[in-house]
Amino acid sequence: MLTFIGLGLGSEGISLRGLREAQEAEVVYAELYTSLIPGLDIAQLERRIGKPVKIVSRKIVEENPQEILEAAKQGKVSFLVPGDPMVATTHVDLRLRAARAGVETKIIHAASIASAAAGLLGLQSYKFGPSATVPFLDNLSTRPYEITAENLRHGWHTMLFLDLREERAMTANEAVEVMIGMEEKLRGEIFTPDRLLAVVARAGASDCVVRADRAESLRSEDFGPPPHLLVVPGRLHFVEAEALEVFARAPKEVLQWHMNRR
Amino acid sequence: MLTFIGLGLGSEGISLRGLREAQEAEVVYAELYTSLIPGLDIAQLERRIGKPVKIVSRKIVEENPQEILEAAKQGKVSFLVPGDPMVATTHVDLRLRAARAGVETKIIHAASIASAAAGLLGLQSYKFGPSATVPFLDNLSTRPYEITAENLRHGWHTMLFLDLREERAMTANEAVEVMIGMEEKLRGEIFTPDRLLAVVARAGASDCVVRADRAESLRSEDFGPPPHLLVVPGRLHFVEAEALEVFARAPKEVLQWHMNRR
Repeated sequence: MLTFIGLGLGSEGISLRGLREAQEAEVVYAELYTSLIPGLDIAQLERRIGKPVKIVSRKIVEENPQEILEAAKQGKVSFLVPGDPMVATTHVDLRLRAARAGVETKIIHAASIASAAAGLLGLQSYKFGPSATVPFLDNLSTRPYEITAENLRHGWHTMLFLDLREERAMTANEAVEVMIGMEEKLRGEIFTPDRLLAVVARAGASDCVVRADRAESLRSEDFGPPPHLLVVPGRLHFVEAEALEVFARAPKEVLQWHMNRR
Repeated sequence: MLTFIGLGLGSEGISLRGLREAQEAEVVYAELYTSLIPGLDIAQLERRIGKPVKIVSRKIVEENPQEILEAAKQGKVSFLVPGDPMVATTHVDLRLRAARAGVETKIIHAASIASAAAGLLGLQSYKFGPSATVPFLDNLSTRPYEITAENLRHGWHTMLFLDLREERAMTANEAVEVMIGMEEKLRGEIFTPDRLLAVVARAGASDCVVRADRAESLRSEDFGPPPHLLVVPGRLHFVEAEALEVFARAPKEVLQWHMNRR
């Protein structure tokens, strides 16, 4: 049995059921390459679970998961992942491989950045269109720009995840920079200096920061260490606008500009 | 201090941090009207927290939350909610009221049905367009139909939540019925008998069920007790198609019909 267990957000994001399942497992693996978890303390997690946690690399999970699958054929194996399991394709792949090898699988859910970010900003999650990832400059794709443009056309919100590579996580400042760079090429009036944007930094951690303001103002603001995330609000219900003002300190005149424009 | 704590999904969905915060609170409230949590045992939760949990009604939260706000002015108050907090507008409202009354607030996240349902089906969450709720027949709205039609035009997936009233939760069968009824009026070729749909029942519970098949087949299938949820898949990546086949027992020919059609 291979049980995928979400670590959620922050250092104590695992659920009671997740912890119990990990305690009952014979072997516990974890991957930490799909997201950064601010404040995660592996030694503390190992003490709670009562056994060592083997950290596996992307290479092992994607190319060479035989050890994991063999262990799961023999007994109970837990596989810990940041956030909610299966949000990353790499987990779905591993689950399919397990199924093909005749290994039963199970998922124990936990908080996901997508739902958390909407909630922290007070934006209604059902009004989010599809999301995209802002890529580093050496791997440029216009997808986040196009997805945002299409969502805005409908008045929907857009969540933009920020690229993550080995030990390097993109900051919201870099992301705004990348998107303003795309604007200069594509000229769709999307990532203009006045565009209302929102930043969520370290969702789920006790030093979490949320901010909403003009693109130009957020561009140089310091949000502290990653992980960061960018949101492009679409049409705002008045409760959403008030939440952005109260919880993300969006200036009234910026909200006004946004409401008039849409 | 008013701390919103997610109960996640299932009976042990609260995070370690959520449990700790509730244990440290002077008063603990819970609302259970925005979602059903299968298997939630309040007495067990009270034992874990070490103090009574006061269940509050929608009327109290939305019209008369003074008791909660007064307690939060005096000391630490925890407010437990199903899933991830702030997904329901009613929580954002309460958080804004608290802020206006000078009460500091905090959110402790947990699993949300939206992320969990995508993961259970193996569908990529970034490919979901906006979502909607299938209403009971006496409160009909064409919004879920229109949102689904628009999402399908773009190849995006759609998550359809099912209406919940007091003790009555809509089943996936009723939801398919309602949507087929709308099809008969609106004739947009969306909820046709052959349309590929997916059902998630009791996400996060140990007896969770996921299924994908033609609308006509799911219409009369028994998924067990609620909560249920409906998903309308859009364009499928081959890994998503395989996941629907392996984990949701979608018949090959139904997937084939879907892939050819899009």
